[in-house]
Amino acid sequence: MPELRKDPITGRWVIIATDRARRPADFAPDRVVIKGGGFCPFCPGNETRTPPEVLAYRLSGAPNEPGWTLRVVPNKFPALRVEGEFDRHGDGIYDRMNGIGAHEVVIESPEHSLTMSQLPEKRVEDVFWAFRDRILDLKKDRRLRYIMVFKNHGEAAGATLEHTHSQLIALPVIPKRVIEEMEGSRKYYELRERCIYCDILRQEVDAGLRVVLDTDRFVVVCPYAARFPFEVWVVPRRHHSHFEQADIPTIENLGWLMRVVLRKLDKVLEQSPYNFNLHTAPVQEPEMTYYHWHLELIPKLTRIAGFEQGTGFYINPTPPEEAAKFLREAGLV
Amino acid sequence: MPELRKDPITGRWVIIATDRARRPADFAPDRVVIKGGGFCPFCPGNETRTPPEVLAYRLSGAPNEPGWTLRVVPNKFPALRVEGEFDRHGDGIYDRMNGIGAHEVVIESPEHSLTMSQLPEKRVEDVFWAFRDRILDLKKDRRLRYIMVFKNHGEAAGATLEHTHSQLIALPVIPKRVIEEMEGSRKYYELRERCIYCDILRQEVDAGLRVVLDTDRFVVVCPYAARFPFEVWVVPRRHHSHFEQADIPTIENLGWLMRVVLRKLDKVLEQSPYNFNLHTAPVQEPEMTYYHWHLELIPKLTRIAGFEQGTGFYINPTPPEEAAKFLREAGLV
Repeated sequence: MPELRKDPITGRWVIIATDRARRPADFAPDRVVIKGGGFCPFCPGNETRTPPEVLAYRLSGAPNEPGWTLRVVPNKFPALRVEGEFDRHGDGIYDRMNGIGAHEVVIESPEHSLTMSQLPEKRVEDVFWAFRDRILDLKKDRRLRYIMVFKNHGEAAGATLEHTHSQLIALPVIPKRVIEEMEGSRKYYELRERCIYCDILRQEVDAGLRVVLDTDRFVVVCPYAARFPFEVWVVPRRHHSHFEQADIPTIENLGWLMRVVLRKLDKVLEQSPYNFNLHTAPVQEPEMTYYHWHLELIPKLTRIAGFEQGTGFYINPTPPEEAAKFLREAGLV
Repeated sequence: MPELRKDPITGRWVIIATDRARRPADFAPDRVVIKGGGFCPFCPGNETRTPPEVLAYRLSGAPNEPGWTLRVVPNKFPALRVEGEFDRHGDGIYDRMNGIGAHEVVIESPEHSLTMSQLPEKRVEDVFWAFRDRILDLKKDRRLRYIMVFKNHGEAAGATLEHTHSQLIALPVIPKRVIEEMEGSRKYYELRERCIYCDILRQEVDAGLRVVLDTDRFVVVCPYAARFPFEVWVVPRRHHSHFEQADIPTIENLGWLMRVVLRKLDKVLEQSPYNFNLHTAPVQEPEMTYYHWHLELIPKLTRIAGFEQGTGFYINPTPPEEAAKFLREAGLV
């Protein structure tokens, strides 16, 4: 019998198709293969073909020259721009404002041929250091209220260049989905005086059923009301609302762990495309007792996105308990 | 300069990329082509290969025999089922319930080779009569609180069979996105004592800029804060909260008009895949002064669904004003 499950944070119901569960082999994702060849603006030697770097980790070389291991540059075709007046105004019944903000690209490695899961551990860790460094810098601009950090891996997941990279978009508004999560967490806190994510971690670790991996610092779970097959959440054990507050051992562990999780997904789902994004509190807000930063990772396995995008209703053909089992059993690949 | 726009109903902000606007030729949708060949359970003569019909419009023949022009059958692989006990219970911090509900398929035509836009006007109209008839029947089951009506057109939009069809899913819960729309509309009504959709119609008709088509009964617009390129809303001029309250002239006009809109999209976007869904009030609720049923149609042109699904944040590369202009100028194709 299919089951309806409610996400305790957002209140979203999903249908979990328990009786015709789809296993990894039932999906035919557009396997991500790095083709190479052709000109790549992210490769070493082509530094002048991107806007000048705003951050780089380097073994050698001057800014905007080869010798870097990671490089952050403004997006050449930004969705938002830092320049200009901050102008918010009405238009009859409507509201609009200038597209003030920032849009940056984290080039995760000089190697064109490697995906994030194939990078050495330290290189994966550095991606998270770069997110932290850029958030700490961008938040100095008090107009920027939210910084979205995300990665599109593979063309089917929205990547337009195959050279491994992720992105930051700094916004003058807080996205609705973030507000929803924070509101849901706040209501729970008001009722119980506990963080809902901390409670979820406790229940998940006790049950074990949906746990993929856990360490001193993190628990990796397939969430109870997963919207998508093999949806994975990476949740820090220690309560903090802001990702950028993470300390050195946390970021180090996150690098190790994300590499393991991505390799598990590569193995179980045959290099499927994916998206991940950081869920973190608005940068101008102080530490919150009720919100808990985490990372959500969604493999791109099904094509029925349009309808679900329109209605906010999800039918998930793979129970998270089964997804977690496949990922656990993949080992530390 | 890019622009941030706020949807006045849900409060969702979107980025409208005004300066590098993508025109129809910049998209390369997976053009929908009916291939035919192979076995089709929706074709006349194969009636026994679907569950028995729950509704049919026929020129001749007995139930579950050829002679029909439209046929509604339960989904052979339903996401939810009518049978079983209605059991809602907790699971520690979580909530779940049995997957009670209904999942039906509207086979829109006996013709395998035609898409909805290519059907005769009366056949398109009949699809909306079938939605109405099925909603009126399903709502008698008081456990069913919401009926989602939607169409996936083309494989990239989630259609698994190419024979033209749409679907109804009757749910024992109200989807979050529906609650959001109703809450947003209710708040506006409390403030202004007017329906927000009625106000939107007034402003849009006055401005004309985003209007695709208007008739005595409907206004077709590209919404101000469109999430997707060529997103189109079909809004009835007369205020009703429930689609199933629509009268005969309204359904007749909707059939004519949807055929025109789909043909315009076919012409401008070269047979792109699309999804549409009815936005209507929960079936067990009485008429509401603050909510206004309508239909939202989203062509499937871009692939960056995953990230946007995760964050609820949308970047739309085509301003709705330009989309509306292309669709207006396509004429009554």
